[in-house]
This record gives sequence, C-alpha cells and structure tokens, in this order.
Amino acid sequence: MHIGQYPFEEFIEKVKSFHGSVAPGIIAGGIMVDIARKNLPDGELFDVICETGHCLPDAVQLLTPCTIGNGWLKIVNTSRYSMTFYNKYTGEGVRVYLDAEKLKGWPEISGWFFREKPKHQQNLDGIILQFKEAGDQIFGIQKVRVKPDFIIGKKKAKAPIIICPSCHEAYRSDLGTKCPACQGNGPYV
Amino acid sequence: MHIGQYPFEEFIEKVKSFHGSVAPGIIAGGIMVDIARKNLPDGELFDVICETGHCLPDAVQLLTPCTIGNGWLKIVNTSRYSMTFYNKYTGEGVRVYLDAEKLKGWPEISGWFFREKPKHQQNLDGIILQFKEAGDQIFGIQKVRVKPDFIIGKKKAKAPIIICPSCHEAYRSDLGTKCPACQGNGPYV
Repeated sequence: MHIGQYPFEEFIEKVKSFHGSVAPGIIAGGIMVDIARKNLPDGELFDVICETGHCLPDAVQLLTPCTIGNGWLKIVNTSRYSMTFYNKYTGEGVRVYLDAEKLKGWPEISGWFFREKPKHQQNLDGIILQFKEAGDQIFGIQKVRVKPDFIIGKKKAKAPIIICPSCHEAYRSDLGTKCPACQGNGPYV
Repeated sequence: MHIGQYPFEEFIEKVKSFHGSVAPGIIAGGIMVDIARKNLPDGELFDVICETGHCLPDAVQLLTPCTIGNGWLKIVNTSRYSMTFYNKYTGEGVRVYLDAEKLKGWPEISGWFFREKPKHQQNLDGIILQFKEAGDQIFGIQKVRVKPDFIIGKKKAKAPIIICPSCHEAYRSDLGTKCPACQGNGPYV
C-alpha cells in the first residue's frame, strides 16, 4: 500500500517527523488525499479546504503543495471529517468524507472516530491495520462547488493595511476601526 | 545568519520545498520564531498562536514541532503580524510582533508590509536582504497570558460525536442540532 508518493511505512516516518506522532486521523487523511486526487482531472491545479483542524490538514501539507501559510489550504471548521480539492478558478471540486455509515465492520476505526474510548485505551496498531485493510471503502465522495470567497478573481480585493489607534499595530482596514484584538477578539487575557 | 537550526540559505531551500516559494512573510516568521524561543525559559514546552494565517504558520511548522494538524499551533486571526509562544499549562507566554513604527529605515520591508506595490513589482531580493540586515531590530516583544480556552486542563471537555440528521455525517454535538455546514456555515454553494 502507498499513501501519496510514499510506501506506507515511509509515510508513517514522514508523519512522525512532521506531526510528532502517528495519529489515526493523519492515516485517514492520507487515504483521503489519494481518493481526492484520483477523482480530479489529470494535472488539475487545486486548492484544498479541510472541514476540521484535527489531523487532516497535516496529511494535506505532507502530501500536496498546499499549506496553511501559502493559502492553498484553508480550514472551514464544520467539525465534519472531510476535505475538498477544488479548481481555484471555477470552484468545482471533489469532497471526500469519512462515511460514518460504512464503519460498522470496522470496530477499531469506529471506536476511535466516535471517541468510544479515551486515547490511552485505544489500540493504535489495530486502528492503523484496519485503515490499511479498509482503504477507500469507508469514505464517501461528492461533487461540490465552493463559495465565491474561495475562487480566484471572485474574492474581494485585499483591504489596505492601517495602524490600529489602540495597540498601534498594523491590521486590515476592513476589519473595523480598531484591530480585532482591540475589539476583544484576541487570544489574550 | 541562522534561522532556527538552519544556515540562512538552507532555510530558504526548506521554505521553497514546503511553502512552494520564498515569500517575505516566511523570512519574517523565521526571525520571529527565533526571537520567541530566545525569550522563553530553556526547555519550555510551548504551544503557538499565530494572529494571521499568511505565511507565519509555515515558519512555525518548519521550525518547531507545532503544526496545525497536531493542535500545538493555532491561528486566531486578528490580522496582526504576530505570533505567541506560550506554556500550555500556565498560559504565560511571549508575543513577538512586527513593529510598524520601526520600519522607517527599511523601505523595502515597509513597501511589502503596507502593500505599497503589487506583488509582481516588489523586489524580493531587496526585501530579503533588508530582513537579513534588520534581524530582530524591527520586531517588538510582549509578555502575555492566553485565555483559558488555550490552556490544558482549562479547556472544555470534548463534546460527543453525533450524526447530523440532515447530511448524515458525524459532527461535534455542542455545535447545534445540525452540523455547522447544514446550518449554512459550510464552504459550498
């Protein structure tokens, strides 16, 4: 079995190096990336949306040119276990999701996915083995079209950068008369 | 000059490989990671918050164990050019930001930061050269304490996973009686 360009065991090593540990979600994510690519036209230049921030974004960052920082990978958190690869000029894409209804024959994956056991009681080797056996069988695929916000040429132009009168740092002028942090939406006490 | 564990030119190669191109923001980000680390206690286990999704998260992912998918890196978008390294048990941390008031002697950096020219008219080599010369001179540093949401043991317990009655996919039960996508907050038309 391969994940992306890597033999399975080599992918596991890449995961350890980047993600810090082998988590079931990143194995799922690797399989999902492969399904999405197989269902895109050859040579398509794609952007990616992950619907959760857990694990899946790291599979995308390991296996595709799309990263959070270069903007080709975005997270729109619906908490669903899903990723979409789409043409950034047309918005047409392929959405791959873990299909809960297909998990009945896969108790280790199901136990992990529905958080039936605390993490330290999960059998990681058993979960990974079931992912290898299940392959693409437990995933669903849909054609989708993304909203204009995610399409090149239909996005709003970037607003000018101005200085916040409160913290004196630079921020995007369309976000208000003070920066979002000074409006109370920052991460600090 | 080094960025993290890499000689400058080797960092540039790492950036090209991961981020796809050399963007000024990721050079800034590399310098910011180094400033943050120098100002943390030795051996401190840290989590990171970036206040923008542009470029900075990729510097963090290249230079630290923190990634979006493993949850040690979070983005709280205030649009300010800043990152915070903090102790995940106490919430105490160090915030590094690009200080707009210190940019007066650095026209190439200033032109990029305030988007004075479109991207294709920017002088990338000139910007990078000024970042190398400026080093930590154009950044500010603050002690901060992050909100309880970001502190281990003070976060809310994870809600159970349930099936959305509308799309039949799994989602976190505390997000509503339907999943966020079926509430209209998904990325699709």
